[in-house]
Amino acid sequence: MFDIVPKLNIVILAAGGGKRMQSSLPKVLHHLAGKPLLAHVLDAAHALSPSQICIVYGHGGEAVPLAIADEKLLWVKQESQLGTGHALLQALPYLDEEGSTLVLFGDVPLVSVDTLNKLVRVSEERYCALLTAELETPTGYGRIVRVHETNEISAIVEEKDASEAQREICEINTGVMVVPNRFLREWLPKLENNNVQREFYLTDIVAMAVKKNIRVAASRSTHLWEVMGVNNQQQLAALERIYQNEYANKLLADGVTLADPSRIDVRGLLTCGRGVEIDINCIFEGHVQLGDYVKIKAHSILKNVTIETGTIIYPFSLLEETEIGENCRVGPYARIRPGTRLSSQVHIGNFVEIKNSRIADGSKANHLSYIGDAVIGEKVNIGAGTITCNYDGAYKHQTIIEDDVFIGSDTQLIAPVRITKGSTVGAGSTITRDTPQNKLSLSRTKQISIPGWKRPIKTQT
Amino acid sequence: MFDIVPKLNIVILAAGGGKRMQSSLPKVLHHLAGKPLLAHVLDAAHALSPSQICIVYGHGGEAVPLAIADEKLLWVKQESQLGTGHALLQALPYLDEEGSTLVLFGDVPLVSVDTLNKLVRVSEERYCALLTAELETPTGYGRIVRVHETNEISAIVEEKDASEAQREICEINTGVMVVPNRFLREWLPKLENNNVQREFYLTDIVAMAVKKNIRVAASRSTHLWEVMGVNNQQQLAALERIYQNEYANKLLADGVTLADPSRIDVRGLLTCGRGVEIDINCIFEGHVQLGDYVKIKAHSILKNVTIETGTIIYPFSLLEETEIGENCRVGPYARIRPGTRLSSQVHIGNFVEIKNSRIADGSKANHLSYIGDAVIGEKVNIGAGTITCNYDGAYKHQTIIEDDVFIGSDTQLIAPVRITKGSTVGAGSTITRDTPQNKLSLSRTKQISIPGWKRPIKTQT
Amino acid sequence: MFDIVPKLNIVILAAGGGKRMQSSLPKVLHHLAGKPLLAHVLDAAHALSPSQICIVYGHGGEAVPLAIADEKLLWVKQESQLGTGHALLQALPYLDEEGSTLVLFGDVPLVSVDTLNKLVRVSEERYCALLTAELETPTGYGRIVRVHETNEISAIVEEKDASEAQREICEINTGVMVVPNRFLREWLPKLENNNVQREFYLTDIVAMAVKKNIRVAASRSTHLWEVMGVNNQQQLAALERIYQNEYANKLLADGVTLADPSRIDVRGLLTCGRGVEIDINCIFEGHVQLGDYVKIKAHSILKNVTIETGTIIYPFSLLEETEIGENCRVGPYARIRPGTRLSSQVHIGNFVEIKNSRIADGSKANHLSYIGDAVIGEKVNIGAGTITCNYDGAYKHQTIIEDDVFIGSDTQLIAPVRITKGSTVGAGSTITRDTPQNKLSLSRTKQISIPGWKRPIKTQT
Repeated sequence: MFDIVPKLNIVILAAGGGKRMQSSLPKVLHHLAGKPLLAHVLDAAHALSPSQICIVYGHGGEAVPLAIADEKLLWVKQESQLGTGHALLQALPYLDEEGSTLVLFGDVPLVSVDTLNKLVRVSEERYCALLTAELETPTGYGRIVRVHETNEISAIVEEKDASEAQREICEINTGVMVVPNRFLREWLPKLENNNVQREFYLTDIVAMAVKKNIRVAASRSTHLWEVMGVNNQQQLAALERIYQNEYANKLLADGVTLADPSRIDVRGLLTCGRGVEIDINCIFEGHVQLGDYVKIKAHSILKNVTIETGTIIYPFSLLEETEIGENCRVGPYARIRPGTRLSSQVHIGNFVEIKNSRIADGSKANHLSYIGDAVIGEKVNIGAGTITCNYDGAYKHQTIIEDDVFIGSDTQLIAPVRITKGSTVGAGSTITRDTPQNKLSLSRTKQISIPGWKRPIKTQT
Repeated sequence: MFDIVPKLNIVILAAGGGKRMQSSLPKVLHHLAGKPLLAHVLDAAHALSPSQICIVYGHGGEAVPLAIADEKLLWVKQESQLGTGHALLQALPYLDEEGSTLVLFGDVPLVSVDTLNKLVRVSEERYCALLTAELETPTGYGRIVRVHETNEISAIVEEKDASEAQREICEINTGVMVVPNRFLREWLPKLENNNVQREFYLTDIVAMAVKKNIRVAASRSTHLWEVMGVNNQQQLAALERIYQNEYANKLLADGVTLADPSRIDVRGLLTCGRGVEIDINCIFEGHVQLGDYVKIKAHSILKNVTIETGTIIYPFSLLEETEIGENCRVGPYARIRPGTRLSSQVHIGNFVEIKNSRIADGSKANHLSYIGDAVIGEKVNIGAGTITCNYDGAYKHQTIIEDDVFIGSDTQLIAPVRITKGSTVGAGSTITRDTPQNKLSLSRTKQISIPGWKRPIKTQT
Repeated sequence: MFDIVPKLNIVILAAGGGKRMQSSLPKVLHHLAGKPLLAHVLDAAHALSPSQICIVYGHGGEAVPLAIADEKLLWVKQESQLGTGHALLQALPYLDEEGSTLVLFGDVPLVSVDTLNKLVRVSEERYCALLTAELETPTGYGRIVRVHETNEISAIVEEKDASEAQREICEINTGVMVVPNRFLREWLPKLENNNVQREFYLTDIVAMAVKKNIRVAASRSTHLWEVMGVNNQQQLAALERIYQNEYANKLLADGVTLADPSRIDVRGLLTCGRGVEIDINCIFEGHVQLGDYVKIKAHSILKNVTIETGTIIYPFSLLEETEIGENCRVGPYARIRPGTRLSSQVHIGNFVEIKNSRIADGSKANHLSYIGDAVIGEKVNIGAGTITCNYDGAYKHQTIIEDDVFIGSDTQLIAPVRITKGSTVGAGSTITRDTPQNKLSLSRTKQISIPGWKRPIKTQT
């Protein structure tokens, strides 16, 4: 489809300050669904496979290119923010000789690839193309005036200049447009700023096109939220909810059972197998992959996690950068930190923290434990209150627990240490040396009772 | 009321595949508010005290009867899914000689007993009775055509066969109907499948009734959600929210204070005394009974729990199969597992897990402990980090802690063991033998300091 | 502005029973956004700087004055609840000779200071002033009938007495009014109770005013929720959501990033610096102050907490009466209890409870610990499972941990005890005496292995 347009350039205008966001963060770096507004626009841009993508930045300086860190982009700095026309002018020298340019906005994050494809295709026939939207209350927006006979755009009329009849028009200009590069080279330098804001408006080139008898076609956006911009926190929160609602509907359509579609947050990519169930108030960040019949219980948070068939994550669990095998039971209140791999049928219980550890088939750590930098074999039972002392104040050390080990409760394993296959560690032990195979190892003091001793008693005051 | 109808039979059609649910679970076994769709329909059916309930199953095979496990039901298998008429035909041999049959659908879970009672009563007068619903947008549904003079039903016209005028009709057929058994015996075998789907439609018997001058009366459902079916995850999620919203309103009407009626999930039966307060995002499963002035704080989950007057459950708590007495303080982050009974004024604090234990009046376990298979007396103080070592790798053993015991922090109690009345256990002890009454027992090693020792220091790299 | 009215008295009617709340708590003491309905009304009343505020109480007896505990108020008891007119009559002897009285209702909690100021100003010109509201469905409410020419109020007509035309009126009486004291003295004693309820209605004085040719002006409320009363749990829950929604919008307008404006609960005062981010399902109680760029992650609860610049609170944390410095990392699953102060760059990790403790710059307690009544210096590392044994069964004692200390895992510090500067405590120790500076202190038993020992094996049954 794209080979019809010889070259498609994309320019993303991302220089605006975003004063109304009331933050020192440049507006386009504010997060929607876990990533910067600008990154959403870039995703759509990349999907169109343009010959190049140019971003006009300005406010916030190098923070924007630094945050995006995409080497395939061309960054053009707009030193002063003198309007959209002036912004695009900065990019002009970098555009291809031939072809057209699609202008996107760094603060209009949810524009869809489908809609842009349609717009680009319209431009192929008609030279200029404008993305429009149908609003119930168009007040304040530039109205799209069309020639009655041909239905082509004859003008964009701003609110203040609109006649009574024109104000009734509900089709408005979104600012997104496709313009052949040769016209941009002709028109952009001619834009004027004789308006109250003293800004150069990109929109004015529509008038130039009409004047020159260059056709301006319009393509309407499918969803209103595609063209909604973010200028303040209310708009950001509203778009976030729209995004999440759309994502939830997509999951439902894919067969995922959601206890409440309005109480799930996906900030990244969530892929689910068949028969997956997700309870209320879960959050998914980064790339989360859930196998068939996985259940995520209420109030859980997963970030960059892969989970295989049949595993259940119980409530209040927090998992990061973790791979979990089949038929595991994790949580409630499990905290699994980066670098962890659980094989199949592993049980991790309440108030247990696992960090950078591998745990093999059928092993269990069910209560109140800290397992860090450990390699744990199969069918190991880690008693309640077990702690791997992996940190000596300077370095982290490894704990190795071989197959069939039973660690008694409240034991400290001072790393580096190896608990050899089949060995048992008595409760309350401090294990500083490797334990011999199949033996009971412990460090324990004789239990005594003090005869004369009296428990402190609170004196009446 | 029911004795007017000599015999009421109920047939529930539950053979459908539910392909659009995208799960290997038969559709009627998908859960709404914690139990299968079919179980909801069965609850309504049982409440009508019919002489028998027959379920036509098919897709998913024996999974459906196995999951429901209700011995009072008659299960009839429909080997091929050839339409609703064919499904009912399978049940025909099992219906009573006399009386009428109410046809329900296993995937229309929320039909109310009141509505069905009204429908059955209407059928008593008029022989056949149809449950209808009033839709704003009836597109796609079979329209109810009534005789102008008598207001009786003359036909159900499907969308494709409807005239312009008929399409304006907003009253639609829900499929739920009551038909005298003698008519079923006459009509069901005569149904034909000369339609695009090649299915036998139960609806066609309405035409037969009209043709035979048998009156077909209609009763309208009170709420639209009563007749909403579940065909995909979106519909399941929507009905779940409707159900929860209705339940929340019922709780409010009963005087329960809800911080947010749209953030409570009841998956079973929740009964509340006076002055009960429930904060946001709580989940209630199974049968939960809350006494007067009980407060359930935010983000808590209770399953099959009974709580007496004045007890407070603090945030992030998870309680299962537990009985809790008066004026207890439980949580935050308390995890109480099945088989636990707390008497009155018991305090269970943060990061404490209790399993299958009894704790008597005024005892406390406030921090970071695991109490399993224990019997604890009155006024006992369990120090932070206490662990009952109830598992020896093969068997579970009991820990008995008598009245007025004080367990110092970070103690392991190696079961079976008895901490006798009034005894004190020193912090950090491993208790392997019963402690003598009123004495201090401990296992402790002398504290020493190593003079030449140097802490590891991270070398600069 | 207020000096135009020589004296403003405010009477709050708070004697009603609130039977429909189905609780023994007097209605005006039910909480909205964390404080009693009556306290909300009082906040508005105080903001008007009246010469006095008088509260008419009755149902629930002294519980109401006791709960409010505001010494600047004049409490007048209405022994029997005989209507609003009778209630105001009880306050009459205590009103100023001159000036006017604003009548408010203890169960209409969200009336705004702006609206009341406008109403008071209207009364200055016109003697009597009535707060009205515009309802879409006014059914059941007293309609405001105005003189066509002057637009002044000529009558309040109750539903049952209203003509067809009057029922079309959408402006209704809210009950809130301002009346000069001299008129109250004249009219209140003349009210009659010849109605079905046998109550004395305050509304009837409007008729008296009109009869006496005293002008009755009206002022319309800005928002409908300002005049919504609470008579049952549904209305309480609805107003709670309205309040929270308004609060969320205020936070957004102030530049706070909210992941979901419909999932934040503020029950008190939340003040935020620049760039603050709040994730889903957080609750703020009392006075919470968040410095610039503070992030509160999901499912956290903060009560009376002050947090300085750059600190992050991770999910599932619960903080009370705590001050936290700059760039700290707290949580997930951190429970910080009253009396705690964390300096800057302190890290508190998962399953850690801190109570009444001070922790200086750069110190860490990252896992499964209980720190109570402790003073901790700079750059201290508290190992996993550390417990300060602060309670001897009768008294609480202090633990002092000086700068640069390293506490090994699973250590008990038996307070009172001092861990001196630079000392190291070996894992698994029970520390009962002060440790010497820069040395390793520990209490440890030799690790042994038992050769002949066999692990219990479950016999087949």
